[in-house]
Amino acid sequence: MTRISNAKIAILATDGFEEVELTEPLGKLQAAGADVHVISNKSGTIRGWDQDHWNREIKVDKQLSEIRVTDYDALVLPGGQINPDVLRADPKVVSFVREFFNSKKPLAAICHAPWLLIEADVVRGRDVTSYKSIRTDIVNAGGNWLDQEVVCHEALITSRNPGDLPAFIDKIIEEVEEGRHQDRKVA
Amino acid sequence: MTRISNAKIAILATDGFEEVELTEPLGKLQAAGADVHVISNKSGTIRGWDQDHWNREIKVDKQLSEIRVTDYDALVLPGGQINPDVLRADPKVVSFVREFFNSKKPLAAICHAPWLLIEADVVRGRDVTSYKSIRTDIVNAGGNWLDQEVVCHEALITSRNPGDLPAFIDKIIEEVEEGRHQDRKVA
Repeated sequence: MTRISNAKIAILATDGFEEVELTEPLGKLQAAGADVHVISNKSGTIRGWDQDHWNREIKVDKQLSEIRVTDYDALVLPGGQINPDVLRADPKVVSFVREFFNSKKPLAAICHAPWLLIEADVVRGRDVTSYKSIRTDIVNAGGNWLDQEVVCHEALITSRNPGDLPAFIDKIIEEVEEGRHQDRKVA
Repeated sequence: MTRISNAKIAILATDGFEEVELTEPLGKLQAAGADVHVISNKSGTIRGWDQDHWNREIKVDKQLSEIRVTDYDALVLPGGQINPDVLRADPKVVSFVREFFNSKKPLAAICHAPWLLIEADVVRGRDVTSYKSIRTDIVNAGGNWLDQEVVCHEALITSRNPGDLPAFIDKIIEEVEEGRHQDRKVA
C-alpha cells in the first residue's frame, strides 16, 4: 500500500496555468509528505495566471521527455484557459496523459484541464466534471458531466474550479493511498 | 441583392479576443463600405489580447441586449483563448448565435471562436475548420474538420488562425453579397 508520505506525484503544466490550481496541490501534497515534481513540455520556468493577469513564475523540476509513467503514483493537471489549450496541441503530452490513464493510477484534472482528458479520449462513458464553459465538450466526448465539487470514477478525479481545491486535493490523497484502480477499463 | 457597401455587420466579442481577429475584419469591412458594429455582452470597452499579453481597449458600439438578428446581414466571431470561452458560458450569447445561424445569413468564426458554434450546436454534419487545438471538440460535436485557410459550408465561414484573415475576410464579403443561404438546414 502506498502512503501519501512516500508517494511520488507529477503536476504537468505549461505557461498560463491557473496559478492556485498548481500551487495549492503542490503545497498541500508536499505538506502531506509526498515528493511532488512540476513537469512541463518546456524547460526553465512556467508562468502562472491569476484570474485575469500573468503572475508568478514556477520552476520546472523535469521536462516531460525526462520522465516515465512508471516514475509516479499520480498525475495532476491544473487548469486555466491557456495552459490546457496549449498542452492538448502537443501529441507527446496527450500520449503521456493517455498512457498514465492506462496505468490505472490516479489521474486528476481541474477546471479547463479536462480538455486534456478529451484529447486523450478517456472521458467516454465516465462520470466527470469540469469548469462550466467546457461542459458541452465533455458531453460531446462521451462523458457523463456532473455538477459536483469533486467527481471520482475509478481514480479519474475531476473538479470544477479553484473553489473546489480542498475537495480535489483530499480526493487525490485518498486515491493515491488506495493505489491502482484495477477495474478501470482501458482502450 | 446586398452590396458590401450597404451591408450591416456585427462583430461579437468580449475581453480576451485575439486583437487582430477583431480589428482586421472591422477595418477591412469598413473600408469596403459596410456599417460594422462591435457588439458585446458588456458595456464600455473590451480588451484585446495580442498573442501573449493584454493590449488595446476597443469601444463597444452596442450591447447584445440592444440588438436583434434582423438588424444585421452577417455576424463575425473573433477568437482568442479567453473571449470565446467566456462567451460560450453566457446563454444569451449562445441563443443569439443559434438564432443568427437559423436566419441563414452569413456567420463567420475564426480560431477558437468555433467553440461558440459547438455551444450553439450548429457544426453537426457541416464542413468547418478552427484553431488546431480545438479540432477534437469540433469532431466530437459532429463537424467535418478540414485543414484549410477558409471553409465555407452554406454561408457558415470558418478559418484557423490570424494567418488566414485575408481569405476569411474575402469570404465574408463574398457571402454577404450572395445573401441568405436558402439551402442551410436549421434545427
